[in-house]
Amino acid sequence: MEPQTHRRAALRRALQASDLDALLVTDLLNIRYLTGFTGSNAALLVAAGGEQGSVFCTDGRYGTQAQRQVPDLRLVVDRPCDLVLAAAAAEAGCRRLGFESHRVTVDGHAAVAATAPGVELVRAPGMVEALRVVKDDTEVEALRMACAAADRALADLIAHGGLRPGRTEREVARELADRMLDHGAAGPSFESIVATGANSAVPHHRPTDAVLAGGDLVKLDFGALVDGYHSDMTRTVVLGEPAAWQREIYQLVAAAQASGRAALWPDADVRDVDAAAREVIQRAGYGDQFVHGLGHGVGLAIHEAPTLSRLGDGKLTAGMAVTVEPGVYLAGRGGVRIEDTLVVRDGEPELLTLTTKELVVVS
Amino acid sequence: MEPQTHRRAALRRALQASDLDALLVTDLLNIRYLTGFTGSNAALLVAAGGEQGSVFCTDGRYGTQAQRQVPDLRLVVDRPCDLVLAAAAAEAGCRRLGFESHRVTVDGHAAVAATAPGVELVRAPGMVEALRVVKDDTEVEALRMACAAADRALADLIAHGGLRPGRTEREVARELADRMLDHGAAGPSFESIVATGANSAVPHHRPTDAVLAGGDLVKLDFGALVDGYHSDMTRTVVLGEPAAWQREIYQLVAAAQASGRAALWPDADVRDVDAAAREVIQRAGYGDQFVHGLGHGVGLAIHEAPTLSRLGDGKLTAGMAVTVEPGVYLAGRGGVRIEDTLVVRDGEPELLTLTTKELVVVS
Repeated sequence: MEPQTHRRAALRRALQASDLDALLVTDLLNIRYLTGFTGSNAALLVAAGGEQGSVFCTDGRYGTQAQRQVPDLRLVVDRPCDLVLAAAAAEAGCRRLGFESHRVTVDGHAAVAATAPGVELVRAPGMVEALRVVKDDTEVEALRMACAAADRALADLIAHGGLRPGRTEREVARELADRMLDHGAAGPSFESIVATGANSAVPHHRPTDAVLAGGDLVKLDFGALVDGYHSDMTRTVVLGEPAAWQREIYQLVAAAQASGRAALWPDADVRDVDAAAREVIQRAGYGDQFVHGLGHGVGLAIHEAPTLSRLGDGKLTAGMAVTVEPGVYLAGRGGVRIEDTLVVRDGEPELLTLTTKELVVVS
Repeated sequence: MEPQTHRRAALRRALQASDLDALLVTDLLNIRYLTGFTGSNAALLVAAGGEQGSVFCTDGRYGTQAQRQVPDLRLVVDRPCDLVLAAAAAEAGCRRLGFESHRVTVDGHAAVAATAPGVELVRAPGMVEALRVVKDDTEVEALRMACAAADRALADLIAHGGLRPGRTEREVARELADRMLDHGAAGPSFESIVATGANSAVPHHRPTDAVLAGGDLVKLDFGALVDGYHSDMTRTVVLGEPAAWQREIYQLVAAAQASGRAALWPDADVRDVDAAAREVIQRAGYGDQFVHGLGHGVGLAIHEAPTLSRLGDGKLTAGMAVTVEPGVYLAGRGGVRIEDTLVVRDGEPELLTLTTKELVVVS
């Protein structure tokens, strides 16, 4: 059976538990998760009663594609998709129709309500996302491939002298993107961060024409997109012999990152995972220089649940895919971040980004 | 004065006309338009009364960037940005607060309402977009550069033999993207369409490993992103001597496209512009093979108002940037689309995509 069939069955169970007759799914990532459809316009009605009451809708541009990608659901080719399916739900006698209130706009909601009079529209935020946090085998395999593409791209970049004094951050980012394509990525999973020297102290620096220089820390935060799944990895290297302060913060961040990874167990509270890494940095006196959360879930979106931070909420479950990415940033001097993508397992977590975390000295 | 200052002044006039005390802007493109801020998280409160009542909010990652990009507005670094500004509006005595009901989710609206008790939240969809349809000089210059990058990339691709039998669609798309970067683009403005042979008859084909072959029509629909502005151009070339049917539909689409361009005048009804091109194709008996609208606005978004189609609504205004892109698609054989990006002017429209529209025979 297709994984999408299992996912829809799980959603149906959640609908029944919430006393909803159906869910109107309009978020495109949720639609992709539940159907495999990759086009840019669609809606999906999942009926609590079973597949035969469910309907998939897209517009004329994607009719052929929908027949191929979603062969097992009733297909309607029409637009606007959300209204077409709301009307269909009303006609089928749906009483309580859930909608994605965290995605549907105020105007969109008003239009759906006008199209489905007599149907009670029930806020149902995050029902599909709640399923998405735990990855099935198909998803982990896509994440593995995405992480492998990033690993290989970085290895190639370094092996071919791509990180050398005189190049700009932009040139490095471009080569990294190119090399990810060479290894099967559909593209970068987000705009790569390449930050050299003092720029490495800016957590979310965008690549500029700044030139790499001997002695610089170079922070590379990037990922590959494979089959819709995002990898996310950060490595920080040094160009030439590292200064004592560079080595110090590198080892500190590496220790914190290892501590964060070691805290990834089923049932761990996300705040405790953050704390496991943060305390290492705080004890060394750099707590104020670790200005962001420890990590986030990753999958069909580059940032998704769970959030591993002091402001997070909830516990880990086996099968969650998350990043662990502490950093220490010394304004005006440089910063270090080390980030992996991992899957929470009943035993130790499974590491998907395999590039070494030893301090790499590029000479 | 910065163009953003003028834009905020225009928005304030619109707020006064709608009897709103302020607008809570949460759409990131609208925020970029009104402030120049390019980060991924922000909100903006524009007070009808004047700049001194307006506030910009972003989170800690973007504090330094906001000081640089938005020096002339009061800055608050906090999150969640929308709620912080809603509370600020309430505290400042705002009575009627407009919000972007076409973007704000149902859950987001509920959170804002809870944060700003006593403030009347008023649906105000599309107020900033209504300003964005008419481009100012800064915007047209960015569009010009984006179109030039695409023009040059295509010229280079052809000059260096990039379009030849044996290459895959994917390889061509990748080279096109690379060459746009060479010419100053930050990236492609959307996923390029490269469609060869029978694939060219699929309006929104995605590049595959299909191989270009002699005799194929090759449809290239692509654009460059420069300073946040998107160009959009389609050209269809033929590999080797064109067959009679290829030449016929090419000349037909070219004639329809010229007719559509000639209909771009201030005060023209968008349906009439669509009709000007469509009638040419219908008279030749191919009306059913032109399965989409004629064009769309383009700017900070790749698709924005106005919509030039039979389902569109409204009239053109000088300064609007639009595409004109008729096509004829013969299923199983091949298709032709020709698309330019232009700016509506008081006289003739200004053509921004300058690549020839003669039938290019690549041999």
